[in-house]
Parts: sequence; C-alpha cells; structure tokens
Amino acid sequence: MKLNKGETILFIGDSITDCNRGRQEDIYAWAPLHHGTSYVSDVEAELLIAYTDLGIKILNRGTADNTIRDLKERWQKDVMDWQPDWVFVFIGINDVWKQFQYPNVADRWIQPEEYERTYRELIEQTKSAVRKMVLVTPYYLELNRAEPMRIRMEEYADIVRRLAREYDLEIVDLQPAWDALLERMYSQQIAYDRVHPNHVGHVYIAKQIMKLLESE
Amino acid sequence: MKLNKGETILFIGDSITDCNRGRQEDIYAWAPLHHGTSYVSDVEAELLIAYTDLGIKILNRGTADNTIRDLKERWQKDVMDWQPDWVFVFIGINDVWKQFQYPNVADRWIQPEEYERTYRELIEQTKSAVRKMVLVTPYYLELNRAEPMRIRMEEYADIVRRLAREYDLEIVDLQPAWDALLERMYSQQIAYDRVHPNHVGHVYIAKQIMKLLESE
Amino acid sequence: MKLNKGETILFIGDSITDCNRGRQEDIYAWAPLHHGTSYVSDVEAELLIAYTDLGIKILNRGTADNTIRDLKERWQKDVMDWQPDWVFVFIGINDVWKQFQYPNVADRWIQPEEYERTYRELIEQTKSAVRKMVLVTPYYLELNRAEPMRIRMEEYADIVRRLAREYDLEIVDLQPAWDALLERMYSQQIAYDRVHPNHVGHVYIAKQIMKLLESE
Amino acid sequence: MKLNKGETILFIGDSITDCNRGRQEDIYAWAPLHHGTSYVSDVEAELLIAYTDLGIKILNRGTADNTIRDLKERWQKDVMDWQPDWVFVFIGINDVWKQFQYPNVADRWIQPEEYERTYRELIEQTKSAVRKMVLVTPYYLELNRAEPMRIRMEEYADIVRRLAREYDLEIVDLQPAWDALLERMYSQQIAYDRVHPNHVGHVYIAKQIMKLLESE
Amino acid sequence: MKLNKGETILFIGDSITDCNRGRQEDIYAWAPLHHGTSYVSDVEAELLIAYTDLGIKILNRGTADNTIRDLKERWQKDVMDWQPDWVFVFIGINDVWKQFQYPNVADRWIQPEEYERTYRELIEQTKSAVRKMVLVTPYYLELNRAEPMRIRMEEYADIVRRLAREYDLEIVDLQPAWDALLERMYSQQIAYDRVHPNHVGHVYIAKQIMKLLESE
Amino acid sequence: MKLNKGETILFIGDSITDCNRGRQEDIYAWAPLHHGTSYVSDVEAELLIAYTDLGIKILNRGTADNTIRDLKERWQKDVMDWQPDWVFVFIGINDVWKQFQYPNVADRWIQPEEYERTYRELIEQTKSAVRKMVLVTPYYLELNRAEPMRIRMEEYADIVRRLAREYDLEIVDLQPAWDALLERMYSQQIAYDRVHPNHVGHVYIAKQIMKLLESE
Amino acid sequence: MKLNKGETILFIGDSITDCNRGRQEDIYAWAPLHHGTSYVSDVEAELLIAYTDLGIKILNRGTADNTIRDLKERWQKDVMDWQPDWVFVFIGINDVWKQFQYPNVADRWIQPEEYERTYRELIEQTKSAVRKMVLVTPYYLELNRAEPMRIRMEEYADIVRRLAREYDLEIVDLQPAWDALLERMYSQQIAYDRVHPNHVGHVYIAKQIMKLLESE
Amino acid sequence: MKLNKGETILFIGDSITDCNRGRQEDIYAWAPLHHGTSYVSDVEAELLIAYTDLGIKILNRGTADNTIRDLKERWQKDVMDWQPDWVFVFIGINDVWKQFQYPNVADRWIQPEEYERTYRELIEQTKSAVRKMVLVTPYYLELNRAEPMRIRMEEYADIVRRLAREYDLEIVDLQPAWDALLERMYSQQIAYDRVHPNHVGHVYIAKQIMKLLESE
Repeated sequence: MKLNKGETILFIGDSITDCNRGRQEDIYAWAPLHHGTSYVSDVEAELLIAYTDLGIKILNRGTADNTIRDLKERWQKDVMDWQPDWVFVFIGINDVWKQFQYPNVADRWIQPEEYERTYRELIEQTKSAVRKMVLVTPYYLELNRAEPMRIRMEEYADIVRRLAREYDLEIVDLQPAWDALLERMYSQQIAYDRVHPNHVGHVYIAKQIMKLLESE
Repeated sequence: MKLNKGETILFIGDSITDCNRGRQEDIYAWAPLHHGTSYVSDVEAELLIAYTDLGIKILNRGTADNTIRDLKERWQKDVMDWQPDWVFVFIGINDVWKQFQYPNVADRWIQPEEYERTYRELIEQTKSAVRKMVLVTPYYLELNRAEPMRIRMEEYADIVRRLAREYDLEIVDLQPAWDALLERMYSQQIAYDRVHPNHVGHVYIAKQIMKLLESE
Repeated sequence: MKLNKGETILFIGDSITDCNRGRQEDIYAWAPLHHGTSYVSDVEAELLIAYTDLGIKILNRGTADNTIRDLKERWQKDVMDWQPDWVFVFIGINDVWKQFQYPNVADRWIQPEEYERTYRELIEQTKSAVRKMVLVTPYYLELNRAEPMRIRMEEYADIVRRLAREYDLEIVDLQPAWDALLERMYSQQIAYDRVHPNHVGHVYIAKQIMKLLESE
Repeated sequence: MKLNKGETILFIGDSITDCNRGRQEDIYAWAPLHHGTSYVSDVEAELLIAYTDLGIKILNRGTADNTIRDLKERWQKDVMDWQPDWVFVFIGINDVWKQFQYPNVADRWIQPEEYERTYRELIEQTKSAVRKMVLVTPYYLELNRAEPMRIRMEEYADIVRRLAREYDLEIVDLQPAWDALLERMYSQQIAYDRVHPNHVGHVYIAKQIMKLLESE
Repeated sequence: MKLNKGETILFIGDSITDCNRGRQEDIYAWAPLHHGTSYVSDVEAELLIAYTDLGIKILNRGTADNTIRDLKERWQKDVMDWQPDWVFVFIGINDVWKQFQYPNVADRWIQPEEYERTYRELIEQTKSAVRKMVLVTPYYLELNRAEPMRIRMEEYADIVRRLAREYDLEIVDLQPAWDALLERMYSQQIAYDRVHPNHVGHVYIAKQIMKLLESE
Repeated sequence: MKLNKGETILFIGDSITDCNRGRQEDIYAWAPLHHGTSYVSDVEAELLIAYTDLGIKILNRGTADNTIRDLKERWQKDVMDWQPDWVFVFIGINDVWKQFQYPNVADRWIQPEEYERTYRELIEQTKSAVRKMVLVTPYYLELNRAEPMRIRMEEYADIVRRLAREYDLEIVDLQPAWDALLERMYSQQIAYDRVHPNHVGHVYIAKQIMKLLESE
Repeated sequence: MKLNKGETILFIGDSITDCNRGRQEDIYAWAPLHHGTSYVSDVEAELLIAYTDLGIKILNRGTADNTIRDLKERWQKDVMDWQPDWVFVFIGINDVWKQFQYPNVADRWIQPEEYERTYRELIEQTKSAVRKMVLVTPYYLELNRAEPMRIRMEEYADIVRRLAREYDLEIVDLQPAWDALLERMYSQQIAYDRVHPNHVGHVYIAKQIMKLLESE
Repeated sequence: MKLNKGETILFIGDSITDCNRGRQEDIYAWAPLHHGTSYVSDVEAELLIAYTDLGIKILNRGTADNTIRDLKERWQKDVMDWQPDWVFVFIGINDVWKQFQYPNVADRWIQPEEYERTYRELIEQTKSAVRKMVLVTPYYLELNRAEPMRIRMEEYADIVRRLAREYDLEIVDLQPAWDALLERMYSQQIAYDRVHPNHVGHVYIAKQIMKLLESE
C-alpha cells in the first residue's frame, strides 16, 4: 500500500468526479462520507474498510463541465490551500468533448497546446508541494479506434501519459482499462453517452485507483 | 402532396414519438398543439402552415419504453379505435436496445422473429382499415457499420423494409437519412446517446416525413 | 445563402425571442442548443441541418418584458461585447402593448419619438461594428386594420421600415407575413393573446428569417 | 331585490365560473367562501354585505373546458341533486372557441343545433324544479362585429336570448355589457385572450348579475 | 368624485394592505393589476370600471407585520419618491396587537406616544407634497367594547381621528363601519382572527374607501 | 394514578386532536410517537416519562373538521375495532362553529338535539366495552360570557356535563380551565382564532388530562 | 465461483435491502441497474465487472419496515413467481427492533417462535424450487454483548444459524463480520442508528456476499 | 422560583437547541412562540402557563452542528448584544461526536483543552454581565459506561461540572438524568442516534431545566 498513515487525498476533476459532492458552503462539505455518488466515495469505502488504521482523509473537488482552463482558475483555492498529500487530477474529457459538441464555438475548445501547457503549469506549481501527484487519463467508451472523438481523446491521453513520464508522476490510465471491459460489456451498460458512468462504471474506476494505491 | 382534405394522421411509437405528449386522461390530449416536443409537433407545424386548407388532424400515440410487443397490446385502443386515415408506425429501437442494455434479461428482448411476426399481425389487422400505413425504420446514430448495435439495428430495419415491399406500404427509411447527416455532424450534436434526438434531430425526422408526404 | 463560413448571429429582443433561453449565469448559456423554445432554436436547427459546413454560431439575448429602452441599457454587454457578425433586432411590441395594457401609467410607455431616437442610436453604435444588422418589425396578430393596437403597432413597424431603408439594413417584415397566414388560420391557433406564438408560430417566424438568409 | 329569504343560488358553467373553486372531494367545497376567484365570490361578497339577512346560500359548479355537452352529462349530479332555488347557466364560449382553436377536429365542436337542442333539454328538465333559471350569454371581448369569432359567438348568444324569451326565463346578457366597457377600456386590460377575465373583469360580471337580482 | 383626472393613489400599510402585492424587484410590481388580493385591487376594479376616463394610477406599498415605526423607516422610498397625489395610510393594528401577542417583549410594542409622534412626523413630511392625505383607522372585529384589545385599539383610532381633525385630513373610519356589519354577521365570517379579512371583508373595506372618494 | 398496567388510551376528536397525526394508510400510524403535534403527544410524553412501567399504549383518531355526526359514522372502525381501555371523546366545537361560520348553510349545523342524541348513542354503544370513557367539553377562548358563540358553546358543554353525570363518566371540563388561564393571558397568545391552540395551549390541555388521570 | 451461467439472484428483505429500489409499477423496476442504493447494487457491480460472462440477472424485492410476517404475505408474488435460481433472505432486524422501539405495542412484535415458525414455512415452500437459498443473519452494530437489543438480536441470528444448518442452506453471517469492523471503526461511521448502513456499510455487506459466492 | 419578574432567558447551543427556531432574518425570529420544536418551546410553555405574571422573555440562539469554537465566534452577536438576564449554555456534544464521526479529520475535533479554555473565556466574558449563567452538560444516551464515546463525553461533562463549581454557576446535569430514564426506557424510544431527542426527550430536558428554575 502506497499510502502513509494520516495522509490526505484530494481528487480534482469534472462531472465524473463531482457527482453532487458536498460544496464548500455546505457545512458538511469538508467531511468524509459527503463525496457524492462518484468513484471518490467508492475509493473512500474501500480505504475505510480495508485500511481503517491508516486514517486517510479524502477531499472531492470535482466540478461539472470543467476543462483544464477552469481547473487552473480554481487551483490555488481548491488544491493548494488544502495542502493535500496526494492529488489525483482527472481532466480532459470536456476539453475534447466540446470540440465535437460545439464545433462552431471555437472559444470553448481546449486545443492540445493549451491542454499541455496548462497541465504543465499545474504540475510545476504542485509537484513539490505534495507527496504524490497522480494523473488520470481522459477516456471515451468507444471501441472503434477509427472513431473521430476516440482518436482525438487518445491525443489528450497521450499528452497525459507523456507528462507523467516526463515528471515521473503516477498515472491511472483509464482508457485501456475501459477497453478491456468493453470487450465483454456494451457501452450502454456502463455509460449512456459513452462518458458519464453509472454505478457499475464508478466502481470500475475506483478499482483502477485502488490497484495503483495497492501496487508495490 | 399525398394527403387528402380532412384526413387524420396517427403516429404510434416509443419515447422518440412520445416526448411528453398529452395523455388521454388529460382533457386536452386529443387536441392539436398538444403533441409534446417530438417530431410530431414539427410535422404538425409544417402542415398547418403550408397546407392549412387540407385541415389535417394529428394524433400522437407514442409511449416511452415501448417495443412492438407493447404496441400490439394497445393497438386496438390506440390505433384502430381512432379510425385514422394514415398510420405511421415507428418502432424497433427498444426491441434492439434492450438486448444491449440488459444482456442478462432475455425475457425483455424482442427477437427478430417476434418483431417480424408481430409487425406482420399489426399490418394485416390495419392495412385495409386505413388509407395509408407508413413504416418508419428503427435507427442508430452510429456511422461505424461494424458496431454490434448498428449491425443488429440494421437487421430490424431490413425486416421493416422487407415488410413495406411485401405489403406495398409507404416507408420512411431514417437510417440512411441519419447516415447522410452524420457525414457532417457529430452524433453528440443530434442525440446524446445516439438514439434520443434533440430539437435539431426532431426537426430532421420531420423533414423526412414531409419529404414522403410531399413526394409525387 | 447570405451567411459566410464561421459567422456568428446574435438575436436580441423581448419575450418572443427569450422563451426560457439559457442565461449568462447558467454555465451552458453561451452554447448552441441552449436557446430555449423560441424561433431562434428553429433557425439554428435549419442552419445546422442544411448549412452544417458554414459552422454558424448562434446567440440568443432575448429578455422577456423588454422595450427598446431596456435594450439600450444592456446593448454594450449583450450585443457589442459578443462581437457578432449578424445582429437581429426584434423589439417594439412591448413598447406599444404597454400603452394599451397600462393606459394610466405613462412612464412605462415608449412613445414613437423615443422608439425611433433610441433605435437610431443603437443602429449608429452597431452598424459599422457588424457585417449585417437586420431589423424585425413588431407585429400584432389582428387582421382588422382599424383596430387601435394594430394601428399603433403599424406606426412602429413603419419606423422600423423607414430606418431599414435609411440605413440600408436588411429587414424581416413580420406583419405582412402574419397577415398572409391569418387569411387561412385563426389567431388563436397561433398565439393565444395575438402576440406570443405557440410552436407553429415560432416555426413560421423562423421561416421568414430563413427566407431572408437564403435569398440572393 | 328578487331573492327570497333563505334561497340557494347555483352557478354552473366553464372556466370563467370555475376559477379554482372548491371541489366536492374537498371537505370545504360545499361551503360559502370557497368559491374560487371568479365572479361567484364577488356576487357572494355583495350579497353577504348588502343582504345579510336574506341568508343566501351559494354553490359554484363551474368546470374548466366545459361545453354544453359536458354540462348535460353532469346536470343531474351537479344541479338537480342540490335542489337550488336559482340556477345561473353560463355556457357556450368553449362551444364556439373550439371551432376556431381546433378547426380540424370537428368532433369537439358544438354546432348551433346541438347547443340549442341540449340547452332546451336542460331547461325543460330544470325549469319547474327551481324558482328561477337565469341564462347568461356567451361573449367575446371583441368590438369588431365583422370578426369571425365575434359573429359566431353572437349566433350562440342569440340562441340563448331566444330560449330565454320562449321559456320566459331571466337573462344576463353579457355581450352588450362588455361592448359598453370596451368603448373605454382596451380588451387586454380585462382579459388577456379576450375571454378569461382578470379581477376587474370578474367584478364587472358580478355587477351585471347584481343588477338583475336587484332590479324590480 | 373627489379624484381628478390622471391622479395617482398610493396605499401604504401592513398585511391587510399587502396581501401578496407585487414587489419592487418583481418587474411587474409597479403595474396596475398587480396589487395582490387586498382591498386595493377591489378599489382599482371599481375605479377602472366606473371612472375609466379619470385614468387613475394605483400603487400598493403595504408590507406585512409593519407598525408605524417600520413605515417611518421606508416612508421616503415607499411614499415620497413616488410623488403620489393621494396617500392612504392604514396603520396601527400591529402597533396594538403586539402588546397582546407579545406581552413580555416590550421593545416590540408601539406605545400611543410613539404612535402619535411618528404619525405626526409622517403627516408633516407629506401633507404639503400631496394633494390629499387620507388616514384609515385601525380596528378590531370585536363588538364587546369592554374587551381589552378593543379598548386599546380605540385609543389608537382616537389618535388617528384627532390627527385628521387637527391637520384637516380625510379619514376612513373603519371601526364603526365594521361595528355596523358585525350587527348582522359574525366575526368569523369576515376575519378568522378578528383582524385579517377574507374576500368579503376586503370588498367591504373597498366600499368604505369608495364612499369617501365618491362623496361630495 | 387511574391507569392500569398495559392499558390502551384512544383519543377521538376534531382538528384539535388531529394535528397531522399518522394516518392508517401510513405504515407508522398505529405507533407511539406518531401522534402529530397535538396534546395527545404531550400526554404521551408525560406518561412515558413518569409512568414508563405502566406501558400505556396511545391511539390518536382525531380528524380535522369533524362534528359528532362524522364521529358516529366512523365510530365502529375508529373506536370499537381498536378495543381500547380508555376513550377520550373531545367533540362539539365544530358543531357550534359552523352555525356561526356558515349561518346560511343549515344542513351543516349540528343542533343541540342531534348533538345530545348522537352523543348518547355513542356512549351507550361504548360504555360497557371499555373500562373508562372520558368526555371532554367543547370550549371557546372568550372571556365575555355574553358573546353569542360563547353562550352557544356553553349549551353544548352543558350537555356533555349532564351526560357525564347521568352515565357516571369521567369528564375533563376544559372551558373553566381556559377561563382561568385567560385571566392572565390574552387569547391571541394561546389560539389565533380562539379555538386552535398553539404549543402552549396544547401543553395546557395535556395538563388537564394528566390532572384527571393522576387524581385519586 | 458458485454461480452458474445465466442464473437469477433474488434478494428479499427490509429497508436495508430496499433503499429506494425500482417498484413493480415503475416500468424499469425489473431491470438491472435499477436496484436503488443498497448493497444489492454493489453486488451487481461486482458481478458485472468480474463475472460479466456469467450473465447473472438480479432482482431486488426489499421493502422498508418489513418483518418476516410481511415477507410471508408477499412471498408468492415477490419470490416464487419470479422463479429465481438463488434467493437471499435478509430479515429479522425489524422483528427485534419493534420490541424496543414500541415496547407498549405487543401486536407489532415478532416473537422468536413466530420468527422461527414463519422462516421455516418460507424455507420449506422455497427450498426445492430454487437452486440455492441463502440466509442472512440480522445484526446490531453494537459491540457490547451485554446490551439488551444486541442480546435479543443474537437470539434471532441464532435461529437463522440453526435453520441454515438444519436445512443445509448457505448463510451470510453478518453480525461477526460487523463485530470485526467495529473493532476498528466507530458505529457512527457506518450506521447513524446502529442499523441502517451508509455507503461504506453497504459496500461492506456486499463484500460478505461476494465472499460466499466466490468461495469454493 | 428563581426567576425574577421581567427577566430574559437566552438559550444557546447546537442542533438540540436549534430545532428549526426562527432566524434573525425571519421577521418573527425575535418573538416568543417562534422557538422551533426543541425543549426551549417546552420550557416557554411551562413558564407561560405556570408563571404568567413573571412575564419572562425567551430567546433561542441554538445553531445545528455547532461546537464551542462556533459559539465563541458568534457569542458577541448572539449572546452579549441581547443583554439577557439568564444564559443557558448547552454545548459539547458535537465537540466529542466529531472525534468519532470523523476520526480522520482532526482539524474538526475540539480537544478537551480547547473546550475548557474556550468555555472559560465565554464564562469570564459573560458572568458579570448577566444575573445567572447556567451550564448544561453534554450527554450520550448510552448506559454502558465502558463505551468509548460515553467515556469521552463524560470527560467533557466533567469539565463543565468543574467550571460550574469553580465559577459558582448553576448547572443542569443531563447525563445522570438520562441515565435514570434509560433504566426504564430503551434509547431508541428517546433518540434514534442516542443524541437527538424526539418530543419525549425534549419534554424530559425541559423538565430538568424547570427543576432547576423552581428549586429553592
């Protein structure tokens, strides 16, 4: 188990992380067991049950609709100020999605250059202030590798993979994990729009995160 | 224009036709302008504006979640009893969808044999009682023809095409229409889950129906 | 087609344009497919389907209850700051309506002089900053030309027509379009109060706008 | 004053009478002061204040959307069973309205023949069982006598006038009363759709009814 | 009729005047026909019907729970700034009521000295700025003149009567008007708690105000 | 203490007893601690705290708006079928109230003869089937003994007192209890309409019931 | 893994199983992924992810507030009619709880004799009709073995254990599992009232069930 | 009785005191009879009924989720500014509870040192400004004295007891009072989670407070 006793894990991301988590203005928002219905609550359940004695503290800072541009704006307040030991960054799906959803509204797209440049800034600002920074790749629940959004998403996942290698950070590479599951389940069983997971999908993401944490 | 003066058109189908249409127990359900937000209202707008003098009466009998098995059960009450001149039957997407959404629940699937057999029964019961019966093919907003649900949907669309030919009925073949649109728009711009259209998608369906009605 | 590739069209007006459009504070407000249930969404559907490749971006800035006095107040923020290529201005119905609805509350009326003077200011401020400015005439769904509100509305429509000629702007003259439709449909079928259109009415307005855009 | 001590007045009609009156299944429905926001409550207030000692009992049996066909169906239960001394019948606007609102749905119209025939049946069934039956004419807040719905409404009002004379019944002729008011107020100030009155309009109807009751 | 053409009447008071009137922040609050369900709407209906040509403008500034102390605080903004021709001041019931409802909370009571002193200030501030200031006496629907709250209310009504005489202002003396009605109706029929009128009670108040306005 | 170990007390009455108690169709309705906000819950709290070991079971069968006529109709189902040891009957306020609230609707009044006759029937049906039947007098929070509703209420309370003596039943005589409290509190502090108690009033009723139960 | 390909598992129980599961009258109730927020959904996620190819079908028939008496009443309709391969019976907590929650209402308790007798009936009715019947022991999140409800719950758990042995049925013995967890977590972290689990608690129950299914 | 004529009692605490009390921004918040459903309303009822002539004024300043750290922050505004004669401080349960509910979130715990230090500050700030300061001990409805939260709570209660002695303040020691009640009632009958009382529990707390006030 890679976690040390008493550490804090902060998850930041978009709607997949958010899932109606407690808000700051909600008096219970900071508390465990108020992390909404996303994979964050499933990770917390696993940690509380199997590693109770580590006394891990969890924070969910996901916000629906966010791209990396939004993350940058709230990074100080939502990441640095909490002084976490671990930061999981799970961002990029909206950065791509908006290029397909709103092809006529270019100012809402995040191009690969901006994505990489901003991601790099966040890493450099954070790396030395935390014990571990973990990058989670954006994904698309689409087996057809010739599909245009799948192709584009892969470009962004590649940026994440490259940055993880370059800065020597941990990575949770979700796309291949989903690909493996899609070999035996249809995408509709996991996410109605190939992006937003149901309970089964969130449990599956949590399993990938636990695999990293429990690996030697 | 194929419609005659004073004719009634009844649309029956699933959630794509339903879209919160007025219900029978709703005092306004029978009325024009109470057809919900589906393509039925768009067809009505087109007919009222361009063919006001024909005085066409429209009925929406779509019900969310329906397969052809459900249609059969309510066919007498929801189609025959209204004595329409035209019947548009738009069914089959759920018949396929449930095989992918609920792969473990076989009793909810409609197999091709049941689909064809039931469709045949409905046609034979209705054909001579109406002036025109129009079959609408089920579709999937997926360009990849090797995708399993696309393949399966095509099987059902083929049944509809075959029945239309065999019984000499009109047909609105939506799948090729969508394929053409998908050449220039991404599926997310039309239907978040590749099935349920947004307003753009409903307008597009209405255009296919108007094309049939206005063709010589 | 008069639109050029990549252009932005901004619609500004009153409740007929508004129809529950996304608001600025709503994170999706700027996006396509969030334009409420007015004619703006119908125009967007037409453009996306028939002119996909032009990649037109649409903005709805209608606000219920507005007169030209309100438009002036929010013109900078709601029109100029968005730097549109096309601006459709559809205002004047409330300017007249309030004279009949609130005959005792003169400070809520917009008299023809104020209407014309303000309209002129908006045109002069905007004309050279956009490629096309289109004026839409206010209307009343009343065939009786001797009816007092119809007479008054015509005065304001005349101002719009005169300004369009004077400044050489495009015009969508809705009143004669409605008059033609009212020859074969009763006003109750289109707008319960002779002003606010139902879906049929909005589709009809969209058709007039498309006619302008598609004309040579 | 035409009312006798201890008499019961029952009002039956459509949405203009209904206005959210108490329902039978509502434990207070039968009670005074539970007559909704229509003219019935205004008549009751006048009677309680000015003729307290008469101890008049009032019943509101209006139901939105009703035509005379609906009234006939519920006449026994909603009129005869209550054994009122006075019955005010205010019906006919929907009978006409639906011909204009739903020109393609003929089975929802009430033609003049059915209107007169049914009205006659109700009168003959009721006349001798009550002390006074009062007919209220249907109306349209439209000064233009050449307007088609105004013309049609006048036909139905004429039937009511003729029946009142033939059977020697009291009449409240609202159309001329409204015409007089419309000489000095615009229809929008009284009824947004020229049919459903606001509070000012309901007070005005109540005044016409009081005029009848207080006349010698 | 004491009103002149084009005059504005402003009503200020407590919950009996308020009755869910439009608020300033509500875009329609300033408008006629948005005065809630109090006597103000009944006065407006009477004036619009019988004196349409006078074009009277009405403003409702009642606020639930107010005493004269609250009125003073909002007098500039809610009375003076509107520059009315007539002001009706209907205040004092809460000033007394709170002495009985909250006998232990003396800082919420308005003693007669404060009531008179503040009332005097408001009159002196307003008198010369308006054409007519009308004082409405506080009341209690209690026939028993030995009842303690009735006795106390009478003290306050006496102050109002005295001030009206002293400053030569119009007065609507509601207490004797209610006493007359209570001779033939039980208080429960008019106001469940002997203070807040139902529709019958509001119509009755409106009648007293109309009597003043129509008197010579 | 008059209660024996393991006894059941059933309270039946009108809105003062009801106060949103659990209903039969509510799965928890039969249970302790689901008796709404009336004096019944206060009595239960007193018994559970001071006489826990008696294990008393409490049932609330109050229903808002009831008169003794309504009680008779539901007596078998709501009293006899539960086989209580004690029955508290608290009825009569609506029987009187409706004579004042609805003076024109005589068929809703319960005259003293019907009140006494029905009460007698209920007593005779119940007396021998229970260990104790307790009658609670109707009341009016009005000190003025010349007030008409107070006079009328006293007539009904006298019937209850007479029946208690005649059949040798326990009695909780609330009117004199309230009179004593009204010597030092104003009626508005206890019940806004002189009938429906606030929390203070309910606690006071509970005290009268406890006094009976604890008396020797 | 003990499950065979294509088997159906039915879970029946009380509120801990229910957790807002789909109802029969809900069109999606029968479907996977509509099992509410209880451990049933967690078991389903585990099975779909790890044993996709087995194609297991899951049914949730939990109903809040149920005791074994309620289960018996709905056993035919809610268990037998679905012809499951596996039945998990998780009942008994309310049977005990009500003895402590409602000590004065003996007819709501289920005594050990009734519990055992009824459980025996259900087993005998079901045993041969299914492939596997699994009994889940009732529990109380209380480490203190001298606590009275813990003692009583243990009696019922013992009955379940005895029946499992006697009929040679599978068992999920939750009480010792909870006891182990309570050694390192406080009961408030798992269940606010020592009975109803939060997400952590449901995940833990699911783990016990998976342990059984995956054991050799 | 220890209270003097005209005194004010202010209660400050956490959710057990709060119970939906009126808020400052609520116009009735300051008033008697607006103290929510906690023991404060029960104390008020007792005082109004039995000691009406003392004219005691009551203020509820409880706020859910508060620890002594939160009390300190709002002490000036919520206690000192009201200048009460008596202050009841009932705090400490959350201070302990959070150590068990959120064992991993140390910055939300209030350690005994902070509890005592802050409590001391509040006493010293307040003592001489009021006539009586009363300390209420935190409690846990758990009879097992070896239970860890019970042990911890006792530590805090001991601090309160010590401070009361040291500063010679009045004390309401709730823990022994609950222990006595728990000898004959099960904790579930009083508080579902051993902390938040139902109506029975609040009445019981009120009795302890009345005992203090009425003692010599």
